[in-house]
Amino acid sequence: MSIKQPFVPGLDRVIAAETAISFLDTEREKIIIRGHDLIDLSVSNDYLDIVHLLLDGTLPNASEKSALEDTLKKHYDIPSYVMEILSLLPETTHPMDGLRTGLSALSSVDKEIENRSTEANKARAYKLLGKLPAITVNSYRLINGLKTVQPVPTLSYSANFLYMITGKEPKPFEAKIFDRSLLLYSEHEMPNSTFTARVIASTHSDLYGALTGGVASLKGNLHGGANEAVMYMLQSVDSAAEFQQLIQKKLVNKEKVMGFGHRVYMKKMDPRALEMKESLKQLCEKKGDYSLLDRCEAGEKTMLEEKGLYPNLDYYAAPVYWMLGIPIELYTPIFFTARTAGLAAHVMEQHQNNRIFRPRVSYIGESY
Amino acid sequence: MSIKQPFVPGLDRVIAAETAISFLDTEREKIIIRGHDLIDLSVSNDYLDIVHLLLDGTLPNASEKSALEDTLKKHYDIPSYVMEILSLLPETTHPMDGLRTGLSALSSVDKEIENRSTEANKARAYKLLGKLPAITVNSYRLINGLKTVQPVPTLSYSANFLYMITGKEPKPFEAKIFDRSLLLYSEHEMPNSTFTARVIASTHSDLYGALTGGVASLKGNLHGGANEAVMYMLQSVDSAAEFQQLIQKKLVNKEKVMGFGHRVYMKKMDPRALEMKESLKQLCEKKGDYSLLDRCEAGEKTMLEEKGLYPNLDYYAAPVYWMLGIPIELYTPIFFTARTAGLAAHVMEQHQNNRIFRPRVSYIGESY
Repeated sequence: MSIKQPFVPGLDRVIAAETAISFLDTEREKIIIRGHDLIDLSVSNDYLDIVHLLLDGTLPNASEKSALEDTLKKHYDIPSYVMEILSLLPETTHPMDGLRTGLSALSSVDKEIENRSTEANKARAYKLLGKLPAITVNSYRLINGLKTVQPVPTLSYSANFLYMITGKEPKPFEAKIFDRSLLLYSEHEMPNSTFTARVIASTHSDLYGALTGGVASLKGNLHGGANEAVMYMLQSVDSAAEFQQLIQKKLVNKEKVMGFGHRVYMKKMDPRALEMKESLKQLCEKKGDYSLLDRCEAGEKTMLEEKGLYPNLDYYAAPVYWMLGIPIELYTPIFFTARTAGLAAHVMEQHQNNRIFRPRVSYIGESY
Repeated sequence: MSIKQPFVPGLDRVIAAETAISFLDTEREKIIIRGHDLIDLSVSNDYLDIVHLLLDGTLPNASEKSALEDTLKKHYDIPSYVMEILSLLPETTHPMDGLRTGLSALSSVDKEIENRSTEANKARAYKLLGKLPAITVNSYRLINGLKTVQPVPTLSYSANFLYMITGKEPKPFEAKIFDRSLLLYSEHEMPNSTFTARVIASTHSDLYGALTGGVASLKGNLHGGANEAVMYMLQSVDSAAEFQQLIQKKLVNKEKVMGFGHRVYMKKMDPRALEMKESLKQLCEKKGDYSLLDRCEAGEKTMLEEKGLYPNLDYYAAPVYWMLGIPIELYTPIFFTARTAGLAAHVMEQHQNNRIFRPRVSYIGESY
């Protein structure tokens, strides 16, 4: 059996799938979602529009969008055995591991779990998108010995999610900024977690399993963990000057500075980071406190001068989440919850036109 | 950014990793594990030897092997919160989903979870190999409303595993046959579950997450589910002739017949299947009942004549497990438990020399 091509570590630039869902246009530095520029979408649409675009293939009209929101809200309820399972997790549980366990446990009551049709997968995806905010927030809360919170269906999907996180009904501009972050996190071509989900789905395994693997992937500090790492850095200093010193020190020690650059693109700033930077400015203005923006801009300047690297989405999402009052440990679980729309679209597409992923290896072991 | 090569569905024949762990030598139809032929190994070694070979790099001497067995037994105990979680899973839970949830929950009490060093990963792998038989068996039992069983440390690792499954202390020849099945299932180059585990580990995610993804992958009926599918076929008929008719009918209807062929090799019979066929003969002889062997041989003949396909390991492992008194729903969880040794070796290797998996796509969506 002939081997197709030489070994490329990390499958860098290797085409792993055909997809109609999204594409990073690296020449134009655009993120394309089903033919639309994600940044254009973020101007006049919200997260639920993108959910519909990803899962149903089109931007929704008013009645479709209202039906979608009703569907998600219908699924807000979490089975009691899942809540009990989350309550049993020790306080040492990593929030992503709590989310992974809760999501894995949810599969038990799917009576149609063997059904991989597009319709069944789509219904399943909507069910999970309905339940995930409560799973995400309550797994975190139960691990930390806090009381559970119930969803409030009179709020919008995103406003309810933020309410559950902070315990306070968000102001409209806060809900809008949070919604935009979900939209920007919703889909991004073929990052590791999306690839993981497609690889798992290709054995005919189900959406729960594919998403469980996606959580495990996103947990890694080279992937979803970056937004939390950025916030811990920002939090560890008291001024923009100190932040620049911290980065300089990391560069001298050849440590990775999280929140900058991207393997696939970024000859200029991540367009999503620009959007989040605008949101950060707005939050600073409203609260009359520019300290995080100052630090971020100082770090941005240093990294550009020293390494020629631009901020990515995680770099500016982190301080935005901080200013919205979101606990740092929830940054990656929120990223996952938003990305579930994209992951589910990829699982549906993989099931529609499947070939099991089964690559080969280059053997460098003992001779025989 | 230039794309390296044209799209190959399923990464068929694409090299995804360099590995010193194992290799399918398709020219000689051999399965090589760290320079040894797996079939040669199966003659004079047992599962724990292969565990040591996979994780420590060498076949163990007598004292190393004894130390390994002691280490695994030291880890037999399951934290009580995990058992409680398993007891909460509804009876509709798929056994692989129960295993996935239990394994995911285990991560909570690993105090060194961020440590990806080879030593930490190896210790973690031994801990999990110690715990997995009890998690595998008791998740199945609790889902089905059965009482839990405790490991018996005076039995060998494999004999205890089989004892926990059947509730009866196995005869030495039964324990030997079961051990051989674990050995043959232990490692097989880069199947989907191993690939999944490496892709997840490449984000710096941990062994628990990588294995959780591995369970999800192995659940799919194009992968680990095959042994169960074979047994349901064998069980649905009353004679060898009926079994041949069943296969003929499936071929006419263009249905996939599970248990035959392999994408990578098999111009002749899977050497592992030959081993298991010998074990099946031995079991038939001891029990004076050749009915399953007769059906299997008839099916083997039909598939060779009609499709030119040979049996793979799953085809003969299924009737062997049946004759050992193992519930069908446990076949895939047992496969996973045995394969954990190989999966952990791959996660260790990935962490030792890492590049995050992040391929590209061929965009076939709406133009923009």
